[in-house]
Order: sequence, then C-alpha cells, then structure tokens
Amino acid sequence: MSVEPFDAVDVIRIKRDGGTVPDDALRWMVDAYTRGYVADSQMAAFAMAILLNGMERSEIRVLTDAMIASGERMSFASLGKPTVDKHSTGGVGDKITLPLAPLVAAFGVAVPQLSGRGLGHTGGTLDKLESIPGWRAALSNEEMLAQLGDPGAVICAAGSGLAPADKRLYALRDVTGTVEAIPLIASSIMSKKIAEGTDALVLDVKFGSGAFMQDVDRARELARTMVALGEDSGVSTTALLTDMNTPLGLTIGNANEVRESVEVLAGGGPADVVELTVALAREMLALAGQPDADVEAALKDGRAMDVWRAMIRAQDGDPDAALPTPRETHTIAAPTAGILSRLDALPFGIAAWRLGAGRARAEDPVLHAAGIDLHVKPGETVTAGQPLFTLLGHDDSRFERALNALEGAWEIGGQQPPAAPLVLERITA
Amino acid sequence: MSVEPFDAVDVIRIKRDGGTVPDDALRWMVDAYTRGYVADSQMAAFAMAILLNGMERSEIRVLTDAMIASGERMSFASLGKPTVDKHSTGGVGDKITLPLAPLVAAFGVAVPQLSGRGLGHTGGTLDKLESIPGWRAALSNEEMLAQLGDPGAVICAAGSGLAPADKRLYALRDVTGTVEAIPLIASSIMSKKIAEGTDALVLDVKFGSGAFMQDVDRARELARTMVALGEDSGVSTTALLTDMNTPLGLTIGNANEVRESVEVLAGGGPADVVELTVALAREMLALAGQPDADVEAALKDGRAMDVWRAMIRAQDGDPDAALPTPRETHTIAAPTAGILSRLDALPFGIAAWRLGAGRARAEDPVLHAAGIDLHVKPGETVTAGQPLFTLLGHDDSRFERALNALEGAWEIGGQQPPAAPLVLERITA
Repeated sequence: MSVEPFDAVDVIRIKRDGGTVPDDALRWMVDAYTRGYVADSQMAAFAMAILLNGMERSEIRVLTDAMIASGERMSFASLGKPTVDKHSTGGVGDKITLPLAPLVAAFGVAVPQLSGRGLGHTGGTLDKLESIPGWRAALSNEEMLAQLGDPGAVICAAGSGLAPADKRLYALRDVTGTVEAIPLIASSIMSKKIAEGTDALVLDVKFGSGAFMQDVDRARELARTMVALGEDSGVSTTALLTDMNTPLGLTIGNANEVRESVEVLAGGGPADVVELTVALAREMLALAGQPDADVEAALKDGRAMDVWRAMIRAQDGDPDAALPTPRETHTIAAPTAGILSRLDALPFGIAAWRLGAGRARAEDPVLHAAGIDLHVKPGETVTAGQPLFTLLGHDDSRFERALNALEGAWEIGGQQPPAAPLVLERITA
Repeated sequence: MSVEPFDAVDVIRIKRDGGTVPDDALRWMVDAYTRGYVADSQMAAFAMAILLNGMERSEIRVLTDAMIASGERMSFASLGKPTVDKHSTGGVGDKITLPLAPLVAAFGVAVPQLSGRGLGHTGGTLDKLESIPGWRAALSNEEMLAQLGDPGAVICAAGSGLAPADKRLYALRDVTGTVEAIPLIASSIMSKKIAEGTDALVLDVKFGSGAFMQDVDRARELARTMVALGEDSGVSTTALLTDMNTPLGLTIGNANEVRESVEVLAGGGPADVVELTVALAREMLALAGQPDADVEAALKDGRAMDVWRAMIRAQDGDPDAALPTPRETHTIAAPTAGILSRLDALPFGIAAWRLGAGRARAEDPVLHAAGIDLHVKPGETVTAGQPLFTLLGHDDSRFERALNALEGAWEIGGQQPPAAPLVLERITA
C-alpha cells in the first residue's frame, strides 16, 4: 500500500472542477512530481487545468514556495549591502541587462543577474556576453559572492540547484501546450528569483508582437501576479509594462548587441535603449533606498563603464578585445521615399534567429556575429535607396530564410506611426 | 528532421483555445499516440483540454473513427441474421445482460456481448458469469461466430485487437482525472461497438448515485452523443436513460446476481430487473425488425431459459452446478418499524466491493460468493427487527469496512420515497 498522503487524480480533479487546491495537497503534488511519484502525464493534465481554470493568489504562492523548496536557497546577507535583481520576460533586441547591471552597481548596490540562454526568437543574455573573447558564464557561488562585493554586478548562469521542480515542469509545459498559463509563468520566474535570495526585484514585463505576451491585458495580469508573489515572499517588487512591438535599439543578435550596450555605457546609444535602461535603473535604485540617484550622470561620467569593464574582467573576458564580425552581410535599401511607419519585432526576431543568432534546440550553438543591424527606426523619414537594415551571417543559404521571415514585416508610408510610450505602466504592490 | 505532418503542441493548442481540430490533425494525433510518437503527457494535456472545452459532433466522429482504425474490425455478415448488441454504462446490481442476451437470441437475433470485468464499485458481467463452475470468458473469433449462429447469444471477453488506441487512452485517462469527458467516454464505448461490427445497438445510460454519470443532464448528453455517433457510423442506435439511484434487483455481487438472473429467465425475479430486461429487449428486437415480439412470453415459456442453458454450456459452464456460497454472513435488521424510504446505490456498491465482490486493481481476483442480498426495496413497509439486507463474505475483517460504507446509506421513515420511473427517457437519432 502507498503511504502517500494524497492522490494525484484527486488533486487534478479539484483544479479541473474549478476549485482551490488545499495548500498541503499542492505542496505534495510539486514534491511528488520532483520525486517522480507523480507522472508527467498527471502533471500535464494538472497544468492544462490550471491554464484553463486559473489559480487563486494563495495557490500561486504555495506553488511558488513548493518549487523553491525543491532546491537550494541562496543568501546575499553577508554582503552588507542591498541586492536588487531585474527580470525581463524577453523581447527582440533586449540587451538592457548589459548596461543596467553595471549602472546600478555603480551606486553601491549589489546586482545579481542569474540569466539564461535564448531559445526561439528571443535572445539570451548569456549568449550575448559570450561574444566577448574569454568571458565565462559559469561561476561558483563563492565567485559570484566575491564579484557582488566588488565590482558589485554579476551576470552569470543560474545553477541547476535553484528550483529544480521548475526546470522539470518548464520542459513539460513546453511540449504540452501549457507554457502560456499565467500562474505557471509567474511561479516559474519568481521561484528562481526568490530562491536566489535578492532583497528586491524589478520586472520588465513586455507586451506586443515581439513579446512572449502579445496582449497587454495578459501582460498586466502576469505583472500583477508576480508583484503580488514578490510581496508575499518578502521581496520588494516593482514591474514596468513595456512596449515590444518594435525591436529595442538598432541591433538584434549577440556581438552587435554588446557593441550597442557599450555605446550606452559610454553615454551614447539609441534613445529607446537609454530610456529603458534609465527607467529600470531608477526603479532598482528606489527599491535599494536611493530614489534620487542621478543615473544619467553615471552613464555620462564613466562610472557605469568602469563597473562594466571590471565585471567583464572578473569573468575572464577582455572588454577591449575585438568582437566577432560576420563573414557575409546583406543590406536592404528603401524601395521608395517616405516614413518608416512599421517595423515588427516578431519577424525581425525570427529572421535574426534564422541567421544563427538564436537556437532552435537547447543543445545548438549560436553564431555570435549573426543578427540584424537596423539603420532606421519607425517614425524616421527615408529617401529611396537609403539602407534600412543589414543582415549579418555566415552563409548565403540562411539569408533567404531570414528574408522570407521579413516579408511584410516593415512598411514605408506617408504617415507617422501612432505614438506609443515605451513604458506604458508601473505596477507596484 | 521529423517527417510528421503535424506537431502535437499545435493540436493541443487548438483545443485549449476552444477551436475545432481539423480532421486530418485529429486522426494524426490518435495514430501518433498509438505509435508512441505523441507522449502520454501530450495526450493527457489534450484530454484535459477536451474535457474542459468539449468537442464538436464531427470531431467526436473523427476521434472514434481514428480509434477504430487503430485495430481490427470484425464482421458478422456471414451469419445471415441481424445482430444487436447492448451496452450499459454500469451500475450497482446491474446483471441485465445475463437474462437479456438469451431472451433476445430466443427470437432468432444474434446477440454478441463483448464484455469487460469490473473495476471499482460497478460490477463486471464476466466476473458474474465466472461464478458458474467451468464457464470461460475467452473465446476465439471462430468460437464466437459459431455460438452466434447457435444458440445465438454470446457473452465473452473483448479481444485486445479492437480499438487498441482506446485501451491506451483509457488507462491514461484513469490516472489523469480525464475519465469524465463526454467526448472521450462516448468515443471509447462506441469505437469498440462499431469495430465489433454489430448492426444495431441499444444503450442503457444510467444516472443517479450508483451510476458513472450521477447527473441526469450529463447522462442525457452522453446518450445523445453516442446515438449520434452510432447514426454517423451506420449502426442503428437507441438509448434508454435509466435510474440508478437504488440498486437493481435484490442482489449485488456475482454468484447471487447469477441466481437472480436465472429467476428472471424462469419467469420470476424482482419487478425492476424484469422491467428493464423487457424494455431493453423490446428496443433491441425493434432494431432487429421485430417491434411486436412478445418478450414477456419468452421469459414465461422457457424459450429464453433454453438459450441461456445452451449459451452457458457452449462456454464450458454447467448451468445446473451449485454456485459458490459465502463462508460468513451478517444480517442487518430494521431498528424500527416504518417505510424503507431510501437505499442508496453508491454506498451499497462500495460495500459489496469491499466485501470482495469487486476489485481495487485490475490484477486482483474477485470473491464470487461475496456481495449483498437485499430483503426489502425502497417503498416497502418493514416491522422492527425484520431483516433488511445480508452481507455475504469470507472473513470478518471485511464486514467492518463494508458496514462503514453503509453508514447513512439507508433510511426508515414515515413517508414513501418520491415516485421515480426506472426508464426516464428514450433517445433516438
């Protein structure tokens, strides 16, 4: 006879019938799944029931706690300074972590950025940084703590010890059509951030064609759910709802995104990348007790750049080394004069992915020099024959597939695109 | 690269989002699941989406066809006489197949009853018949055909070649909380009946406390769905919606149900068992072209009994052998005088199961002599001390667990129970 205190079918039925799963039953379900007692098929049915019937705030909290309890918890208490992390739900051209982490650390705040690799059309922060010769993503906990002491910022791979239940559940959701469940997305993200031990967290929740959540209402619901989870777990959390209908900045890829990030750290860079970097830095510093920090000054006077260089060196990277360049390029010029009225994030993300900037399977390598450079942003006026964007790649065969993705992805017309703020809303507990 | 024409995640998403799955995608999903290309976890998520979002009539037909296509199809065309089958969704004390099959065969109609074993509180027809010394459930297709020729009725185990996809899917539904989906129940039942090759089918769809579908509206929906499926597949199908709030007849178990069935075949037996046997026989004979057959006469004059005895002998059973008897009995007497106003089917089914009449796991044996004999039916007047029912078993330890199940399961009061017809509705295409 089994000595298990619950039956998976009973737990599934509660959620299937629209009920609230009792705390102890939900904890057991996650634990038994991690142990392999609850089968993938049972968790898949449960995940679909969650997707279709939702979860109460209290259930999402218990689910998140159970995933945290499945692994180790880290602590940065020994650092003697506040820690603030940032998480983005992912977008096209989203390199914000690269200038942001050193910028915030320049104010004496520890910034632990445990990051992942890209899969599909959204890039991965670690993939971008691996464009830098010598730089390594894997750090021991001791190395990470030392680096958070000085220079104060670290961007590295999350160890497998944090929330292993989430890792298994995420892989299952990916093949069962249950990725899109807000309670599961929220608990997946927040379990790792809470287990990591940060004091505070700023979330960049994106909506629009290039975002995971295309619909702004669902993005808002996800943001509110995660802010509530942070609150319930003692992690001060703020979210910004930001527009991902067009790529961020002028670069989509890996090496080219590092180059653009360094431009921002040198006080330049595209206006939208600077705007979002500054907005997120202000939120992070406010949570760390510095609401009036002059973040723009730290970009202009080289303080953020100094932390960047030290951060890259601490992980064996050479901040002065030349970045990889593509073997082949293919530039698209404007067929007519007019205003670039639209440039859709999703097809540009897919095109950069097809050029080799991203991976189709987790075990694939990325081509660090591949991607797309934009020469014009929506709303700008172009003349006929003016370069619009350049595909960067290694072999001709990929260009055709990338160009197929870009069909209908941009438009030159007579009208300005409708004005859309980059940061739409700020969500707090 | 995969050469599969569809992706399971895309198919799951269509149903998850409330859409209609295209015919070819649905056929592929069932076929790929049978081949093992689609994983249990993917089919479990799909099943939960079907349960919560439903299926169109056309989807249920394609699903059923795909399950039929996963295995062999039988044909009774060589018999040269009409074939009519009956299926019951299962209940407590439901032994109707035993008198029904020989009764209908007595009119020259072939009755192929491919049956299953019991699991949980509803009994299995094969388990009941195995109370008869020597009787065997497993027949070859040739033996089955010969027996359908003469004496005309066969009750035997369904071979594993019919709708193997359903077999795998049913086992999955059982552990993932997706048994209750009407499209899945309907396609599971009907795929086997259609693959079996019967000309016509009568469905006994039960509702009430002892039924699989407790709610009458859901039972009606299931009945309509199955009648439509039969119609779409060229099998003339009629359904009766019948009451399963109280056990059928006066026996719940195996050997005792055989005894009661023989009483009916001898022209006696409890009124409700006779009523339902006659009602179902009339429907079956109407579908076989004999709407005016005098079924009651065939019970009274021994024609049905003759077929029964020949049918049992054809499967090596001895119709005259003594049936197993229990080692121990425990009789409950009426604590007060009054009217037996309630006797709930579900707890009595569970109590009989706990006594050993049913099995908890598919590999468990059943105790053929175990069960419950009722001495009184709801609506009858009792005196204080009059026996109400007798538990039949082999060891004392089981009596206590059975009595626990019966707490609150019956009531003696001053009022007649509300009148409830046994056959509530007749549903045709």
